[in-house]
Amino acid sequence: MQEFYALIEAGGTKFNCAIADKQRNILVEKRFDTTTPVDTISAVIAFFKQQQQAGYNFRKLGLACFGPLDLNPASLSFGSITSTPKPHWSNVDIKQQLEKGLHCAVFIDTDVNAAALAEFKWGASQNTSVNIYVTVGTGVGGGVVINGQTLKGLVHPELGHMLISGVPEIKGVCPFHGNCVEGLAAGRSMAAIWQQSADSMKEDHPAWDIEAKVLGNFCHNLMVSFSPQSIVLGGGVMSKKGLLEKTIEYAEQSLKNYIVFPYNQGLKQIITAPGLGSRSGVFGALALILD
Amino acid sequence: MQEFYALIEAGGTKFNCAIADKQRNILVEKRFDTTTPVDTISAVIAFFKQQQQAGYNFRKLGLACFGPLDLNPASLSFGSITSTPKPHWSNVDIKQQLEKGLHCAVFIDTDVNAAALAEFKWGASQNTSVNIYVTVGTGVGGGVVINGQTLKGLVHPELGHMLISGVPEIKGVCPFHGNCVEGLAAGRSMAAIWQQSADSMKEDHPAWDIEAKVLGNFCHNLMVSFSPQSIVLGGGVMSKKGLLEKTIEYAEQSLKNYIVFPYNQGLKQIITAPGLGSRSGVFGALALILD
Repeated sequence: MQEFYALIEAGGTKFNCAIADKQRNILVEKRFDTTTPVDTISAVIAFFKQQQQAGYNFRKLGLACFGPLDLNPASLSFGSITSTPKPHWSNVDIKQQLEKGLHCAVFIDTDVNAAALAEFKWGASQNTSVNIYVTVGTGVGGGVVINGQTLKGLVHPELGHMLISGVPEIKGVCPFHGNCVEGLAAGRSMAAIWQQSADSMKEDHPAWDIEAKVLGNFCHNLMVSFSPQSIVLGGGVMSKKGLLEKTIEYAEQSLKNYIVFPYNQGLKQIITAPGLGSRSGVFGALALILD
Repeated sequence: MQEFYALIEAGGTKFNCAIADKQRNILVEKRFDTTTPVDTISAVIAFFKQQQQAGYNFRKLGLACFGPLDLNPASLSFGSITSTPKPHWSNVDIKQQLEKGLHCAVFIDTDVNAAALAEFKWGASQNTSVNIYVTVGTGVGGGVVINGQTLKGLVHPELGHMLISGVPEIKGVCPFHGNCVEGLAAGRSMAAIWQQSADSMKEDHPAWDIEAKVLGNFCHNLMVSFSPQSIVLGGGVMSKKGLLEKTIEYAEQSLKNYIVFPYNQGLKQIITAPGLGSRSGVFGALALILD
């Protein structure tokens, strides 16, 4: 009998829900607005129950979820969203609610850890021992995979809140940290800093050069911290033409050949767009199940 | 028959050589100046040959070495120091020279990765899934252990070269990166910035408050990157009275309760002095063998 999997990419704006098979074919897909936990989780459960009735029997659900999450299996609140600035969503035991509502096993990790795992398995980060996935969208987040496992320590990486230096042209707007990469480079922050949506800024707007500098300095710090063989930069903001290339240039300028790359590699081979396009997140949910 | 181990903590100033047993008893110990590779490595080999003749038969040597190193077992230059600013020491195949000279197996990693492993096994970082060891001495370096294994990716961590923000009072002196943590906070950098040796600056010298701020911001970035359960701060500069406590305060101020600590932990439980005192390095060499 063919096996099916339930997948959720749970973001702060949308819950992207899907049914897939082992070969990564997406058979059904639907998006729900992220409103309140009661409304959104109920809608998601109803959707997956319909799929079960339609014959997509699944016993496993992959949940790539916005954080911060409690990922400690020994903790009483394992699988909960902990303390998030997002209204209504703090202390929501999302894993448990889905397990009870759908009578299936739920495999949870952060959306970005899951995306990093998907890029490692099937995307731009294959055959690496250390890889990083960063999304630069409304916010900035990052996940890390080391020797094929997502990084979980005290909590999980919060790469968006790394402090960034050497960009005096703008003032970051993160309510916690000011000049962290999220406060400087997220779509939401760009809009606040320049009083104009990132989408509407043309390629020659000075914001983009500064954006590349921030992300270049961020990549510098990722390189000297994790020594990754792959950094994937995804998310809506990164789709701006020329931004990836300029980010790589700034990272090279900043590192100043301090790191000697084996095999004549360079940052161009390391810092790339996602191999899975916009699918890193939903395939991430599948990667959590198949792992 | 009792087994003995040869240990080298190879630093830029001294090679600390020792014979130990499995119980971490240091039976013989001698330091050699780091001069040229020919002179230093010959002296080290002669020392260990004497120990063999004295009855300390060892078949394994742990080498905790200054870097950057080639740690890729598949590489032709595996076990070499690669491109270091230290005169004479670039492209020195130190692992191979010791293996040939002493007819034993050599287990190599960076000095700081090895120290992190020793703190994980026997020191302040026991029972963690992610721990970091940082030395703030003449230079600044850092090693990382994840799930009991030292972190090796493209190369290895170079934590001393992380860019640091939010400290406009001083200008960093790293020839590569200016304001990286080594350029701002290493003993050598403090001496260059304040025109006075770090040792000679009294506790109320303004340099120490700024030093703590730099290290606090560095710890912020380590927390959001690796989410470690333990950061050990070692090295000569850290022995300054009050510096560790002030560093923790600045890290707390900088993180602004963004990270929710499980079990009511706080940074005071995470950021600590070495559990192994000044022995993290030489025990690190032993940890590499026993691993």
